Amino acid sequence: MKSRKMSEDKKREIKIAYIGGGSRDWGPKFMTDLALCPNLSGELVLYDIDSEAALANVRLANLLFAHPEAKTTFRVRAAKTSKGALTGADFVVMSIEPGPITMRYADLEIPRAYGIIQSVGDTTGPGGILRALRAVPIYQHYAHQIMEYCPNSWVISYTNPMTICTATLSTVEPSIKAFGCCHEVFSTQEMLAGLVEKWFAVPRPDRREIRLDLAGINHFTFATAASWKGEDLFPRLRQMIGEEGFFNDHTPQALHRLENHLWFDHDSLIAFDFLARFGVLGAAGDRHLAEFVPWYLSIENELHRWGVILTPYSWRVERMSRHSTRDLQSHIVSSGEEGVTQILALLGIKHLTTNVNYPNRGQHPGLETGAVVETFALFTDNEIRPLVSKSLPAMVLSLVNHVSQIQKMTLEAALIRSKELAFQALLNDPLVRIPTDQAWAMFEEMLTFVKDTLPDWSL
Amino acid sequence: MKSRKMSEDKKREIKIAYIGGGSRDWGPKFMTDLALCPNLSGELVLYDIDSEAALANVRLANLLFAHPEAKTTFRVRAAKTSKGALTGADFVVMSIEPGPITMRYADLEIPRAYGIIQSVGDTTGPGGILRALRAVPIYQHYAHQIMEYCPNSWVISYTNPMTICTATLSTVEPSIKAFGCCHEVFSTQEMLAGLVEKWFAVPRPDRREIRLDLAGINHFTFATAASWKGEDLFPRLRQMIGEEGFFNDHTPQALHRLENHLWFDHDSLIAFDFLARFGVLGAAGDRHLAEFVPWYLSIENELHRWGVILTPYSWRVERMSRHSTRDLQSHIVSSGEEGVTQILALLGIKHLTTNVNYPNRGQHPGLETGAVVETFALFTDNEIRPLVSKSLPAMVLSLVNHVSQIQKMTLEAALIRSKELAFQALLNDPLVRIPTDQAWAMFEEMLTFVKDTLPDWSL
Amino acid sequence: MKSRKMSEDKKREIKIAYIGGGSRDWGPKFMTDLALCPNLSGELVLYDIDSEAALANVRLANLLFAHPEAKTTFRVRAAKTSKGALTGADFVVMSIEPGPITMRYADLEIPRAYGIIQSVGDTTGPGGILRALRAVPIYQHYAHQIMEYCPNSWVISYTNPMTICTATLSTVEPSIKAFGCCHEVFSTQEMLAGLVEKWFAVPRPDRREIRLDLAGINHFTFATAASWKGEDLFPRLRQMIGEEGFFNDHTPQALHRLENHLWFDHDSLIAFDFLARFGVLGAAGDRHLAEFVPWYLSIENELHRWGVILTPYSWRVERMSRHSTRDLQSHIVSSGEEGVTQILALLGIKHLTTNVNYPNRGQHPGLETGAVVETFALFTDNEIRPLVSKSLPAMVLSLVNHVSQIQKMTLEAALIRSKELAFQALLNDPLVRIPTDQAWAMFEEMLTFVKDTLPDWSL
Amino acid sequence: MKSRKMSEDKKREIKIAYIGGGSRDWGPKFMTDLALCPNLSGELVLYDIDSEAALANVRLANLLFAHPEAKTTFRVRAAKTSKGALTGADFVVMSIEPGPITMRYADLEIPRAYGIIQSVGDTTGPGGILRALRAVPIYQHYAHQIMEYCPNSWVISYTNPMTICTATLSTVEPSIKAFGCCHEVFSTQEMLAGLVEKWFAVPRPDRREIRLDLAGINHFTFATAASWKGEDLFPRLRQMIGEEGFFNDHTPQALHRLENHLWFDHDSLIAFDFLARFGVLGAAGDRHLAEFVPWYLSIENELHRWGVILTPYSWRVERMSRHSTRDLQSHIVSSGEEGVTQILALLGIKHLTTNVNYPNRGQHPGLETGAVVETFALFTDNEIRPLVSKSLPAMVLSLVNHVSQIQKMTLEAALIRSKELAFQALLNDPLVRIPTDQAWAMFEEMLTFVKDTLPDWSL
Repeated sequence: MKSRKMSEDKKREIKIAYIGGGSRDWGPKFMTDLALCPNLSGELVLYDIDSEAALANVRLANLLFAHPEAKTTFRVRAAKTSKGALTGADFVVMSIEPGPITMRYADLEIPRAYGIIQSVGDTTGPGGILRALRAVPIYQHYAHQIMEYCPNSWVISYTNPMTICTATLSTVEPSIKAFGCCHEVFSTQEMLAGLVEKWFAVPRPDRREIRLDLAGINHFTFATAASWKGEDLFPRLRQMIGEEGFFNDHTPQALHRLENHLWFDHDSLIAFDFLARFGVLGAAGDRHLAEFVPWYLSIENELHRWGVILTPYSWRVERMSRHSTRDLQSHIVSSGEEGVTQILALLGIKHLTTNVNYPNRGQHPGLETGAVVETFALFTDNEIRPLVSKSLPAMVLSLVNHVSQIQKMTLEAALIRSKELAFQALLNDPLVRIPTDQAWAMFEEMLTFVKDTLPDWSL
Repeated sequence: MKSRKMSEDKKREIKIAYIGGGSRDWGPKFMTDLALCPNLSGELVLYDIDSEAALANVRLANLLFAHPEAKTTFRVRAAKTSKGALTGADFVVMSIEPGPITMRYADLEIPRAYGIIQSVGDTTGPGGILRALRAVPIYQHYAHQIMEYCPNSWVISYTNPMTICTATLSTVEPSIKAFGCCHEVFSTQEMLAGLVEKWFAVPRPDRREIRLDLAGINHFTFATAASWKGEDLFPRLRQMIGEEGFFNDHTPQALHRLENHLWFDHDSLIAFDFLARFGVLGAAGDRHLAEFVPWYLSIENELHRWGVILTPYSWRVERMSRHSTRDLQSHIVSSGEEGVTQILALLGIKHLTTNVNYPNRGQHPGLETGAVVETFALFTDNEIRPLVSKSLPAMVLSLVNHVSQIQKMTLEAALIRSKELAFQALLNDPLVRIPTDQAWAMFEEMLTFVKDTLPDWSL
Repeated sequence: MKSRKMSEDKKREIKIAYIGGGSRDWGPKFMTDLALCPNLSGELVLYDIDSEAALANVRLANLLFAHPEAKTTFRVRAAKTSKGALTGADFVVMSIEPGPITMRYADLEIPRAYGIIQSVGDTTGPGGILRALRAVPIYQHYAHQIMEYCPNSWVISYTNPMTICTATLSTVEPSIKAFGCCHEVFSTQEMLAGLVEKWFAVPRPDRREIRLDLAGINHFTFATAASWKGEDLFPRLRQMIGEEGFFNDHTPQALHRLENHLWFDHDSLIAFDFLARFGVLGAAGDRHLAEFVPWYLSIENELHRWGVILTPYSWRVERMSRHSTRDLQSHIVSSGEEGVTQILALLGIKHLTTNVNYPNRGQHPGLETGAVVETFALFTDNEIRPLVSKSLPAMVLSLVNHVSQIQKMTLEAALIRSKELAFQALLNDPLVRIPTDQAWAMFEEMLTFVKDTLPDWSL
Repeated sequence: MKSRKMSEDKKREIKIAYIGGGSRDWGPKFMTDLALCPNLSGELVLYDIDSEAALANVRLANLLFAHPEAKTTFRVRAAKTSKGALTGADFVVMSIEPGPITMRYADLEIPRAYGIIQSVGDTTGPGGILRALRAVPIYQHYAHQIMEYCPNSWVISYTNPMTICTATLSTVEPSIKAFGCCHEVFSTQEMLAGLVEKWFAVPRPDRREIRLDLAGINHFTFATAASWKGEDLFPRLRQMIGEEGFFNDHTPQALHRLENHLWFDHDSLIAFDFLARFGVLGAAGDRHLAEFVPWYLSIENELHRWGVILTPYSWRVERMSRHSTRDLQSHIVSSGEEGVTQILALLGIKHLTTNVNYPNRGQHPGLETGAVVETFALFTDNEIRPLVSKSLPAMVLSLVNHVSQIQKMTLEAALIRSKELAFQALLNDPLVRIPTDQAWAMFEEMLTFVKDTLPDWSL
């Protein structure tokens, strides 16, 4: 960050590099938030191996920054090389797809043929593990580049599997300043905000007013406490879920969602099941929570019973191949994401306490030091200071720790390109309860399918 | 131990109390070995809540010690109270059945109705957990009695679930001198002795010549190395299991066993599958190994594929109700068990290095301090000194640690009589992948069935 | 806290109990800050075994709250019993003197006769340990009372030895909400603020603008980093202390201080010596830092060489016996202490990030879980959330850990009233390098002197 | 070890390399024991940078193996290069002097000028640290050579500082099979054997009959229990040292020793002082024990009070420069050392349980994993299996851990050639309580004196 002293009223000049700058989802959101931020200005450089996609986002950005509602402007361009994007950057945003979208077939459809279904398949389970094997080498590459071209930059990562991608950065370049961002916790806050509105007969509060104690790993995080303006929300939640019928069969809701292609909708029934069984509230969507334990995904009907449906592979492909309009709306509206706010905080312009994926230095009691965990942290001038979480109950800690160990094995397997070790990680996954010989056949099939994305493996 | 100084040629006078002294299996074996031990003499007092069974063993003992091949004699009697048996004892042997044998219905048949099958069901899985809930209060009771009536005695425990029973003793009476014994590792040594005979064209060596590095928990233990007279056996094992066809479908063998009621027979195929997949050899019977992981027991056919069959509940009941002859054979033959040898070693009469279940004080790297683990130890004068094990590979350590945590939760649940915590332990078990609501229904059914054995629970 | 919902413009009604309410130093400061706080109102109840002293503070408080510059009013009274003070309290402030001031003779003068001098003697060293033995039973008593009469209250402790007193509360009542406060770190911030004024030619910034990374234990805390508005201050500090002559003999300054009774003055030379030798800045006064290591206090002259002088026992007695005026000044001025601000933050009225003494839950990497450590924490609505500190360099961590272990031994000795264990703690102290037999004689003399304050010891 | 299978009655053929083969003390002892061992034969190759010394030992060896009392013979030669000695070796013995004996001036006399005296000065304190800085690069060099020329050999190290030398081997070559041997514990056993003789009116037992529980680090080891044939010796020891006058001033004994140059004589008064104060018996000579704590070595008179005298630098030089006769005695007598017995055990020829310096894998509860510790271990066929020690009392564990951390810092400083880090280790040593500036001056003087032995340092 070139100029640290500033009068508060001047815009801060920064350079942001965006790796995966052709991103159809995170890219436009991030640029919109940037356009709405009066404190920042400078240069935004997009890099993508799909240069057309990057150029499309450049065009969109130019419209955004020229919009009458924009509060600042950035010089935006697409870089031919990642070096060109990274050199001199103050911040690096990373959101990539590891390999062509059709690789998701191996993540989702091959395991399904062996009886293993996944509601998301990009974080954990066979799908998450295979995706990690593709993503790690890419992250490894950029970690080294970042330390070469912009070693003092902050790296904000949005890619799934979030934990393993972030851990790749901190493992291969221990002095990198990187963290992972995820909005799943925001949804939990939104859900609770809705309940507060109802319970207290007040206007729906901003999600940031819902204070959580949080511990876990990305997409498998838990609120050990929740309050709003000093009101403890847990007793009310317990009463609500204790009511007759609360956990009734939600298959009708699931069928409705199937019919209407509402892949992401759910009723937090699994999040609440965790609260009922173990005393802590799942703080991610049910689609995610379901994948980390062996209880909800034995057959598709069982998942429906909790109101959750599978996101189909076909829809994923179709969405990506759809012609992205990337049109400007008449109004530009904040995305609700926090990347730009985090940048402001790291520049010392504002304080922020939020959830973050970060190597454990003590903030998550009971998990290994160095494992990437999701907890709250204070973002302050050029520093992230994790807040120590409350301890998870023994049962949940055991579940989380199990997954964390699988992630560690997966990362190591990906770094040393070891099929055997990767297979051990896969066998250890709670979703895998098929015989070892069938699991091996499945894994070989998966690897064969994606082998072009793993060029330096012996396959 | 009253008289510590002795001339080596005199018999040592000791008192042994046997809790569960009516035992049909361990009892006769132990008394036979005692009769064959020239160094010991003294008093053996049997206590059993089934006083008839104890008296039957007294009769058997009198025959044994009067047998011409016997090398010593002991005064044997049945005690009316455990206090009478324990007072002044130098050694306490414990082998009990926690509740009537029909309780095993709840351990085995109720889970089967919910789709969870177990090959043994007395150590882990739903059956092992329910059995632990019954056994812990009994062990808790005797732990206190032992510290009251014979606090300096050594306690040798043979009851399953071995780990949790032993842990009960060391948890509720931290200064008790207790350990758990199991012969499963002997079978692994025997199996390897057979291979040595074949590979080296030598007479089959004594199992004690097979040197193992051992780490794990009872029935889920692993040899990280094996040698015979300095010859590393692992390369030969790896070659053997790498041969075409080694892991072929063993359903024919299983069917043969089913037909002939050879419930305990197996081919160590699962023990070798661990070696193939993870680099360490399972050091327990396949019936046990299969229960700790979710891969082999999804359906009965799958288990057969590995050559293993289920031990049926009906056989268990029938065996127990069968009229025990407890007759004397024409020759009395050493059982192959080590209880008496351990007594000799603890008396300082001989040295012994053998496997033992004992609280972890450092001997099992990577497992929690205090958790009962199975490793080798040196038995010496009034002391057990564990040998530090080699580290298990990360994958296997993760599996073992997972089970160890479940055992800890089960023990705590049993000690505080918490249905909720016990249910968490059950949900955490690798064999349980049914939905949480079905699991709860199953668990309630199991508890209801055995509720008479859990008098101070709120059920 | 009775009324959690409030409109922000109304004063919050709270009850504060002050144990040691006759305090001449912390008492008036706290009441002054309370009078200047527009957000609070309610009841302040002082309890002191010296009821005269408590009444004197009641009179002072009434003047303060009636002062035209006061921004609020509190009902103030002295309670006859601690129960009367504590019942229903929202906050409890504790600042006590453990035993008559003449007990300090045993803390300071008896060790001096054996060649052990201490610059403060209330935190560590023989004096700190003896003082802890007196303070622990008192804190133990109040811990139980607080959990009986106001279990939901927050306890703010100001008594030395800070670490051991705070640890007493959390050890004997694990669910107590207690923390310890100390202003030594403020002085470090003030010192750095003075340097910022000089280096950057700006008006002296408020100390809160000096951002520190902090780790250690009370009075032996270290800044691993320091910045002001994003400017890293460490390179400038290193340059400053690297200049020729910076560490020159400061005996002249010491002699000047001796002559003028400036007992507390120093030049931070020892704090900077830590920076020079180990890379981290001592974040407490030199009088304190010198006592935790064996290098500066071998003889009084050596201490003078660093510009520090001993605070004499005679002055301590005289100060306490001096007739306290407790007069009101014409203006009432904020003390600079943070107790009232912390209360506001814990009520959810404002956010505060400050240093705090609190049991380690992960915030201090490398120190034992549960040990009371001094780090930064976020004070928020009814919660203290520690921030994870940077790791201390191995050398300093070793020193801090050593002292932390001594504190643990001292606390345990005090709780079980063990002279032998207390002596082990004393022998382990870095200031004690006299022969064990002389140390024992010294310790016996010390204990004999204070034996009336240790009624339930066998002395 | 080339030929693992053998008939038990044949001599085993091995190759032993001796680094430091000109050794005047350990060399002749080792060769004598070898000559008395009927089970071994083969080749012994001596390497020494002082080739004359190596040749002198070759001559001595030839006399020894030709002696009528010799039970075997070895081919003995001096190698020109260490490669020549190491290639193909089954065992490597290392006993070296790190630098010329005159370097000991810097170890002993320079600190003395600054007021720091040491009774031995080769293990800990300023002398031990400086000696370590010289020894580590040498051990580092041979570690690499051993892994190149004889990676399967066992390395037996006799050099002081024992802990740091052994740790060098395991740190720079983690797969090396190395351990350190020391006879100090034997002396404790001898001392206790003498007491057994007296107490039980029996012939003095062999020291191996004294069973110890042992934990600590070399020269600072402790017996937590001691027994002889099942008789607990601790109650008798406690009674003995509790008698009036036991700890009386032993200055007369010290003066007698001074006069008669009995540098190594002592009365175990310090070992017993540990027992009296902390409950565990020091298991090394008082000369060593005194150096690890700050209580006995403040001035020389104080050391005399415990019956111990300093070993003078002048005597050390004189002994080394004395013309070594290395003559053969009329009888050849076992040295009492265990090197040859350890070789037999590692060859699988006999079992041995003895004390050993070895990286902590769990055998020393409370010390860091990887730190070299001294405990008992079982030596068996090609393997050392440490026995888990009893926990040391908190006080002693704190002292041992402190020293272990200093050793870790010293080793790291030596490996990275860092003067600053080495100085931190020195400041942390319990014997160093001089001001930091004086300590720095002292350290610079020490380093300057030995700078020729530290060629790749920046001094």
